[in-house]
This record gives sequence, structure tokens and C-alpha cells, in this order.
Amino acid sequence: MKIALAQLNATVGDIDGNTHKTIHAYAQADAQGADLVIFNELAITGYPPKDLLLKPSFVRRNIAALEHLALKLNGKAAALVGFVDTNASPDGVPLHNAAALLHGGKRIAVAHKSLLPTYDVFDEHRYFEPAKECTVVDVPLAGKSRRIAITICEDLWTDDECFSGRRYHRRPIDEIAQRGVDLIVNLSASPFVIDKQAFRQKMLAGHARKAGCPVMLCNQVGGNDELIFDGGSFVVAADGTLTNRARAFETDILLADLDSDEKLIADYPEALASVNDALVLGTRDYVRKCGFENVVIGLSGGIDSAVTCAIAVEALGADKVLGVALPSRYSSDHSVSDAESLAKQLGVEFQEIAIREIHAAAEETLTPHFGERPPDVTEENMQARVRGLLLMSLSNKFGRLLLTTGNKSELSVGYCTLYGDMCGGLAVISDVPKIMVYDLARWMNERAGREIIPESTITKPPSAELRPDQHDQQSLPPYDVLDGILRRYIELEMSVDEIVADGFDLETVRDIARKVDQNEYKRKQMATGLKVTSRAFGVGRRMPIAARFQY
Amino acid sequence: MKIALAQLNATVGDIDGNTHKTIHAYAQADAQGADLVIFNELAITGYPPKDLLLKPSFVRRNIAALEHLALKLNGKAAALVGFVDTNASPDGVPLHNAAALLHGGKRIAVAHKSLLPTYDVFDEHRYFEPAKECTVVDVPLAGKSRRIAITICEDLWTDDECFSGRRYHRRPIDEIAQRGVDLIVNLSASPFVIDKQAFRQKMLAGHARKAGCPVMLCNQVGGNDELIFDGGSFVVAADGTLTNRARAFETDILLADLDSDEKLIADYPEALASVNDALVLGTRDYVRKCGFENVVIGLSGGIDSAVTCAIAVEALGADKVLGVALPSRYSSDHSVSDAESLAKQLGVEFQEIAIREIHAAAEETLTPHFGERPPDVTEENMQARVRGLLLMSLSNKFGRLLLTTGNKSELSVGYCTLYGDMCGGLAVISDVPKIMVYDLARWMNERAGREIIPESTITKPPSAELRPDQHDQQSLPPYDVLDGILRRYIELEMSVDEIVADGFDLETVRDIARKVDQNEYKRKQMATGLKVTSRAFGVGRRMPIAARFQY
Repeated sequence: MKIALAQLNATVGDIDGNTHKTIHAYAQADAQGADLVIFNELAITGYPPKDLLLKPSFVRRNIAALEHLALKLNGKAAALVGFVDTNASPDGVPLHNAAALLHGGKRIAVAHKSLLPTYDVFDEHRYFEPAKECTVVDVPLAGKSRRIAITICEDLWTDDECFSGRRYHRRPIDEIAQRGVDLIVNLSASPFVIDKQAFRQKMLAGHARKAGCPVMLCNQVGGNDELIFDGGSFVVAADGTLTNRARAFETDILLADLDSDEKLIADYPEALASVNDALVLGTRDYVRKCGFENVVIGLSGGIDSAVTCAIAVEALGADKVLGVALPSRYSSDHSVSDAESLAKQLGVEFQEIAIREIHAAAEETLTPHFGERPPDVTEENMQARVRGLLLMSLSNKFGRLLLTTGNKSELSVGYCTLYGDMCGGLAVISDVPKIMVYDLARWMNERAGREIIPESTITKPPSAELRPDQHDQQSLPPYDVLDGILRRYIELEMSVDEIVADGFDLETVRDIARKVDQNEYKRKQMATGLKVTSRAFGVGRRMPIAARFQY
Repeated sequence: MKIALAQLNATVGDIDGNTHKTIHAYAQADAQGADLVIFNELAITGYPPKDLLLKPSFVRRNIAALEHLALKLNGKAAALVGFVDTNASPDGVPLHNAAALLHGGKRIAVAHKSLLPTYDVFDEHRYFEPAKECTVVDVPLAGKSRRIAITICEDLWTDDECFSGRRYHRRPIDEIAQRGVDLIVNLSASPFVIDKQAFRQKMLAGHARKAGCPVMLCNQVGGNDELIFDGGSFVVAADGTLTNRARAFETDILLADLDSDEKLIADYPEALASVNDALVLGTRDYVRKCGFENVVIGLSGGIDSAVTCAIAVEALGADKVLGVALPSRYSSDHSVSDAESLAKQLGVEFQEIAIREIHAAAEETLTPHFGERPPDVTEENMQARVRGLLLMSLSNKFGRLLLTTGNKSELSVGYCTLYGDMCGGLAVISDVPKIMVYDLARWMNERAGREIIPESTITKPPSAELRPDQHDQQSLPPYDVLDGILRRYIELEMSVDEIVADGFDLETVRDIARKVDQNEYKRKQMATGLKVTSRAFGVGRRMPIAARFQY
């Protein structure tokens, strides 16, 4: 029996386009002799469709597309297609996150998702009604009747070790194991997080051993706003061995022959490489799915804009990227020369636009209104905002999406200027801590076997260059300390006391926690940022702003 | 039997402050002879605590506060206090949205919420576990044992007429009516929406008749980020008659004597006045709870900034508001004079800062980089961004929160500049359609019995004044048409076809729908906006950005 896992790159809302891709992939898999083609979760609408689901007309269109697919996917192979199912009520609720088994021009069965993730970036209880039990169907495949359990993503995401906090009262895998099946399939849209693929495989291996049958997962691939779906669809045998795996970060059709002993396992990149590949895919898809081809990036000569630029070049091609240095009176000589050598090494167009004139005009205009007040952070922000104005003007004039370059560490503590360096449509490395930005830079140079990120950019002390002789460490602890505190405070939700018990200084931890909390208002207005850690700023972290935090 | 409804203004996260307010209000009600004091939902944490609930230390502090209250609320009166309950598991999950009945220094009973709203601005399934059944307790009050059903907000929010779309499988009111009780109490945090108070009263009157007993609801009051809680706590008798009502938009302790026939019903403002009062309260609380006292507003001479300024003055006092006119070479004479007379009529400080110099410097700097490209929206945005830079500089230098002035109609179609006029910490009228902005202006003048909003501001045709002879209606349909389409498309989720069937022009509707969808990226980065309609931009409307919409 041959089963194809078709991991496709859907655009959210593009029902026509997604349907077309589904038909095309089915034809390929059918021609290759697949008995069953499994698509990723909600293949028709793309995942996550968010509040498009509240539009009854959108749900109706998706049902019409499914009916169209039932007629079109009429080869030898059966197909399992993710869609939004709806009861017959006139207002179209309740909805189900569903999968339809299509064969011979007909809809044979429909499975509904049982476990609805409603945590982190997921909001499925907002839209869907859970199934009360798992769907198990008997399907004639390759001349024999096979009993198949159809599950959708979270349905198999139950594991004592890692998910004790989730409040599920049922574990579909227990029901399935009790009933006894020949095969468990899972339609998935599981976003990338560092090291998550290994966990997926381990968890499903456990399920396979428990149920005594193979388990196969078809994951979505591609970037949709902040989420990057990494593909890497796979099959584990009944004994838990990994037997087949699709490519990571690419559209792929994996054909798994369950009667063969041959293993076909595509590489899945190691941690740092996976972050790079995720950011590349996330950037490419965000830019293109927003209707852009070209981007513009402000190059400061520092590490963040350098890494962002290298990712953009890998995502879109050097000819689509414009790098702009925007020196001020406080810029060091190396800031422009480092920016320029980066641009040269990446082969991107480079421009230099001095902010001097506008900065001076702004000061002149404002001086009478500032009275006797001494210079403070206002003057620093002003420069960042002049840069934002210039970059947005280039963005508007030439239709280039502006990429913003802030890293997670500085966004955490508000070491960034709203409407200044925070300007832009996509925050490429907003979920990458500063130490990891350095690691990525070194990794990029190593992979290339040459200097792409200038060595001086990597080795010089980081500075915002918004006043004379400014350095990050005048306002912040060393980045290894900062990142250690931030990971505990933000990703692990540890209290100040608990972080101190881990060996950090009380005053430092308190100061950092306070800065994180006080800067919610900035992050409220930040660009969409690509998620790579277990907790990113954005839809997965919903903090109040006008609030008081106690330490 | 005397029951006090203590509608308090909690600051989210401020457990110490909220506990202190609770003790103070209890003492007052106890001194007035109350037998039972009912507080609003989650009085200890403030509503909505959002992802603070994911911090185990936060939940522990709230439990400690409840234990403290159990000891402190030790007068004659019993008390019902909203808090976050937790099971004994070490990671503090699952949580319950809960109410504790405290009396004589002890915790007598705890009720958990059954229905967890997970729609619009609500995310309760993200945090809480639902109760399996309603809590009914027998409490000795005023010398007799009374059987009381304790419900929390959404538990009573079931009504065939208006909420058929919600997927609740239980209706606590049915269970309560079947068991038979003397009294139903409801701890609530129900945010303001135009006309919602009348609906609340009607719905609870129905419940009272069904259960054959009085129903009383204690609502939170105050602004917490985008949500404005309007108070207006009330009691309906067993026959559905409204007998008592607390003040709207103010902290209040309503003492209801259930044995008296006297009606004590505070006014609840009519629709337009309620919008004004909501925006005033929402602005005051956002500014103050963020730690500010003063605000700055850009005054264009137009209706939006005029109404925003009037609201700020009512919220904070004229001495806390700075109005700034920022004329450009395209500004009409009346734009500055109208701004100035507004400032004079409201008694606020007024400054004029011309953007000419900075605008010219920006053009000079950019011209060589624009090449042969003709002027377009870039040049218009540039002016708005220079204004943003100036206003933010005043905000930074003087610690004044910048209020942004865009209305819902222009935000809907993207008739606004990101990092320009969208700069600011709070979008005061971002949920008020343009036509309603005009209505508010006229209402303000009428209430004052004099011209506050200059007549010429109300009567002149609206213009962004970003190029010569620009008027809104060059890019947009008349505002009554625009607002009619937007209400159907955004609030009612109607499709293009359905809106056309309501009598609007196909091309216009399609154009507006496209503009709404294409401008998600701007609204992603907008300031927190005060919610007054059934569907506001922000947390209650979660749309994808890199998506394709089909019409």
C-alpha cells in the first residue's frame, strides 16, 4: 500500500489557489501509484484562517471547493482533504475543523477534530466545536479493506512528559488503541519551533507503539503571518521507527510504500540551520503573500540588520533587496563601511542617505518648544524616527516592503524606538535573542565558507549610536545574562524570585522584569514578527498594557 | 434583606490595590447594614488579566489575597469576591474563573464559572476550565437561610433571540430554575457596547421570571486597555421589574433592600451620551493606569481631533491637555484658526509648530533617491510622518501620552498614515464611525449650550490637506454610504453580494471591501483603541494579513 503525504504551501483565504494546488498534487501522487493521498490540515482555507471563519460566505465557499474536489480527485487514489465543516444551521455555526475522505467522485467519510488547541498562538475554541469521538473508517485500499483512524493535528498532541498543563479530558490515541486500527493518519498544521520536529517524531513513535500500527503525519509548509510551517511530514512504523520523511521548509509530496523496507528520510536541519531556514521561508512567504517582490532594509553596520539582510537575500534573491545606510552625526566611520561591505558581500544594491539635514531641521523646529529641558531619550528617538521616515518613503515610492531588524532581546526591554527602528511590515528576527543572532551570523559565514557578515560587525561592541560613545551595555546587562533572564521570564513564565534562585542578581532581574512589562505598549504596535521560540511576542503572548505588575 | 453591589474600578494585575479597594468598599457596605456584599468578576485581579494568568506566581498572589480578604471581611455582612481559583497541581492548572463566599473570617463556598466566553474580545478557554454544574448554596442572611445561585457573567448570558450562534450545550439558568432558589447573583465584567445595558436588563428580567426569584448583577466599572466597563449594576425582581440600578461609568456601591418596594434606579445615559461617557472613562483610565497625567493631541482643525480633544478635556481636565497645530504648505488658513478656537473654547494650552522646514529638508534629502518618479502618496505620508515625529518628540520630552485621532471609517479603509497620524498610545475614537463623530460633536455643543466644537469644523468638507485642494470624497464615497457598507462588512460580517442586495452599488462595495482587507497591516500596528461597537478593531477582530480574500 502506497500513501502520499502532500505537504502544500497554502495562502490563507485563497480558496481557489489552494484548491488548484490540491488538484495538482493529487494528480502527481495518483500518477505515481498512490492508493491514498493525505493533505495537510485545512488545506482548502490555509491555516490559520482566523476570523475569516466568522464570515459565513467564506465557509460556504470552502464547502463549494470541497464539493469541487470530490469530483476532481477522481483517479485511483483516495484523498483526505482538510476543510471547514459546518452544520446546517443558517448562520453556519457550529463549525468543525474537519477532514473529508474522497474517493471515486464522492465524499466517503468526514472526520472532525477532537482536541482544539486554545493556547499560545492557537484560538480554535473561538471557532470550532470539538468532535465527541474519533473517526475510524474502513477503506478498501490496494485491494484490501484497511481500518484507518483519521486524526487532525492536536488530536495526537498528548504526551504526559511535555503537556501536563493542557486540560484535555480525552486522549484520542487511547480510544484508537482500544479499537485497534491498521493505520493512524494525522492532518497537521504544526508551526515551527526550535527542536519541535524531534518532539513530534518521538511523540508519534510512542503512539505507534501504543496502537501497534504505523502513524503518518502530513504537515503544512510555508509562512502565514507570524507562523512558519516547516513541513517535515513523516511516517513511523508500528515499532516506532521513523521510515519516511518529507523535506523540511519546502513543498513536497512524500510517497511512502508501507510494504517496503526501504527508508526514505529527507534531512531535517539541525537547530541553528533550522532557524535560518525558517526565517528565510517566513520572510519569503510574508513578502510574496502580501503582494510584494522587493524589500528595503536599513543597514546600521550592526549585527541585527546584517543578519536580517542575509536572510532577505536568501529568501528573495540579492536583486530584490535594497540596503540603505542612514548615518547621523553620531555614527562611527565603521558603521557605514561595515554596512557597505555587507551589501557588497551579499551583492545587494546599497544607498547612503545622511539624516543630518532633517535631524537638524527637526531640532531647530523643536528647540523653542523644548524650553529649558536638557537632552534626553527624546533626541535619540528623533534620529531613529527620521530614519523610519526615510525608509518608509523609499518603501512607499518604490513598493518595497520595509523589513525591521530588531532582535528579541532589545524588543523585550524596549531598547528600540516606536515609529523609528520599529517601522516596517515584517520583524524578521524579533523572536531571535541577541546571542542567537551572533550564532546565526557565525553560522552563515561558516556555511558560505567566506565572510558574508563582516567580521568587524560580529566583533565590535553593539551600539545604537544615538549619542556619542553609546554602547548597549551602558543600559543593559551583558547579553548572555540578559538572554538568560529573558528566557526564564518570558518563555518559562518564572517569577523574579525563581529567576534569582537560578543564580541571577536580584536588582538586575527586577530591573529587566520591569522593563519587559513597561514596554508592552511598544510591542502592541510592532510589526508581525516571525515565531521560532516556544513563546514569541505577538498573538501568542497577550499581555495587558494599562496594568500594574508586582514583583 | 439588604444586598450591596460593589462595582469597583480594578487595575489589571494590581492585586494589592484591588484588594485594598475591596476591603474599603466592604467596610462601607457593612456599615450601611448590608447582609451580603457582591463584588464584580475577578475583583482581585481585575478583568481581563490576560496572560498574567499564565504566570503561576501571579495566580498564587491572588490566592494569598483571597485568604487575606477572608480574614479582613469579618463584619456582619457576607461577601462574594471574584478571584482565580486553582487546583492543587504544582503548575497551577487548571484554573477557574471563580467567586468565593466569605463570612465570619472563613471561606464558606466557592463557585466556578460554567460558560467561558471565547469569542470577540474574550479568550476564557485559553485560561480556564469550565464548571460542570452551577453552585447553589444555603446561606443564613438576615436571620433566615436563603438559597442562592452564584453565577459569573457569561453563565447568565444565554438568550435564544440574540445568541443562537454561541455553542453552549448547557444553560445554567435552566438548572437553577429547576432546582429552585431564593436569589440569583451574578458577578460580572461586561464591557460597554452601545445599547448593551438594555439588553442585559431584558435578558436578566427573563431569567428572573423563569426562576421566579430576584436576579442581581454586579458589573465591573472602568477602562482596561480597549475595554470600557460601564457599571450600571442592577437588580430585577422576580416578576422581571427593574428595582435598583447603580450609576453608570462610575465606581458605586448600590444597596438594595429586597424587602422594600422603593425603587432606586440611577440614570443610564442614552446612546450618544453613553458613547461620550464611555470614551471619557476609557481615556481617563488608560492614561492614568499607564502612569500618565497629561496628554498631547495634534489638532488639524478637523472634526476628529476636535472631538478627541473634547473627550480628553472631560476625562483629564483642560490643564492636562496640550493641543498642537502642525500646519504644512497645503494647510488652509481655517485649519489653524479652527484648531486655535477649539483650544480656546476648551481652555487647553495651544501651540503651533510648522512642519515646513522638516518637510523641505526631507524632500531635499530624498529627491536624489526618488529619481524620475512622479509625486504620489509617498509625499502625503511624509507630511503625516513629520507630524508624528514632532508630536512624539513632545510626548517624550514632556511625558505626555499622545492621543491619536483617527475614526473607525478611515481606519477601516486605510485612509491614514502608519507612523504618521496613527502615532500615539491610545486611539480614542477608532471605533466611532465618521457619521457618529459628527453626531457626537453636535451633541457636545448642545449639552454645553455653547459652541465647543467650532461650527466651521462641523460644516466644512473633510480633508486630510496633504495635497492642494484635497477632499476625502475624492477617494471615498460619501460617509453615510461608507459607514453603511462598513457596518455591514465589518460588524455584521456580510458578504459583498449580501451588501449589494441591501441596496449598495457593486463596484463601491467591492472597492471598500478590498480596502478594508488590504489595510489589515496598518491596523496590526495601530494603538490600543477604545471599543464601543459590537466589533472593534483590535483583540476582538483577528484577521490574517498575508492572505488573499475573494469577493
